[in-house]
Amino acid sequence: MTPPVVSIVAKSGTGKTTLLEKLIVELKRRGYRVGAVKHDAHSFDIDREGKDSWRLTRAGADTMLITSPEKLAMVKQYHAEQEPTLAETVAAHCGDLDIVLTEGFKKSAMPKIEVHRRERSSKLLCRDEEQDPTLIAVASDSALNLDVPLYDINDAEGLCDFIVEKFLS
Amino acid sequence: MTPPVVSIVAKSGTGKTTLLEKLIVELKRRGYRVGAVKHDAHSFDIDREGKDSWRLTRAGADTMLITSPEKLAMVKQYHAEQEPTLAETVAAHCGDLDIVLTEGFKKSAMPKIEVHRRERSSKLLCRDEEQDPTLIAVASDSALNLDVPLYDINDAEGLCDFIVEKFLS
Repeated sequence: MTPPVVSIVAKSGTGKTTLLEKLIVELKRRGYRVGAVKHDAHSFDIDREGKDSWRLTRAGADTMLITSPEKLAMVKQYHAEQEPTLAETVAAHCGDLDIVLTEGFKKSAMPKIEVHRRERSSKLLCRDEEQDPTLIAVASDSALNLDVPLYDINDAEGLCDFIVEKFLS
Repeated sequence: MTPPVVSIVAKSGTGKTTLLEKLIVELKRRGYRVGAVKHDAHSFDIDREGKDSWRLTRAGADTMLITSPEKLAMVKQYHAEQEPTLAETVAAHCGDLDIVLTEGFKKSAMPKIEVHRRERSSKLLCRDEEQDPTLIAVASDSALNLDVPLYDINDAEGLCDFIVEKFLS
């Protein structure tokens, strides 16, 4: 079973990660198994130089796993293959979860909640700059006139009600 | 398809990671897709404090993924569930690989190669301390009298021939 995916999108510097953190906390409080996916356009470096896991990846391991009684960590190289789509990534790694929230992935076809702050921009990515049919709600600090539900940017509980109602009921 | 798994075992300080590195390099040179799994008895910390990915895990994400054009990183919490067995971990995450080498997992039922250095110990984990039926070869700096093939501890190429012959032909 592939869980539903909701992408939190925003112009940079609007506070996507902060809202995502609040939504994760709220969904966990309600007992859901939650995944979070972040896209990094650059070559991130999650592992630490000199550690055994880093040595195994450097030696050429296509997939490096560390497992402990508490958790699993994995670094998987894509090599010549294309980066999988968000839907493929979720299908491959999130089958045990109830819902997945993503940061970014503005161009995917997944449902989106846009975070908006007036001081950052007067315009919405998914409405003013283009008419994105996958937008399902907006979290803003401003009173906007919209064709989708509007939530206060700090109302993680209200947004969580909306997500549960739409995807988990 | 679940790939074959070979565990590199040794008493601590014998040089498991060094041999594993050499075997990964050699298997990659021959064109195989290689996985490496390390067991960490302690609570490892692969992520870095303050980073977005760390914030999402700290907020409670059961599974945290970072994806980029080059690679994927994942941290998955086991929570109340038992730590999966090595076979379950490989089945879940290594289906796209040709072979998986592990460091440790001495108690699993997977085939094992023991690394041995006389100055570390005169005894083998899988022969002198117990008669482990899963031992398939030994890499040592000493001339041992054994019922399984013996390779020089630096002969990654010979060990690789053995692994390919046994599991990948």
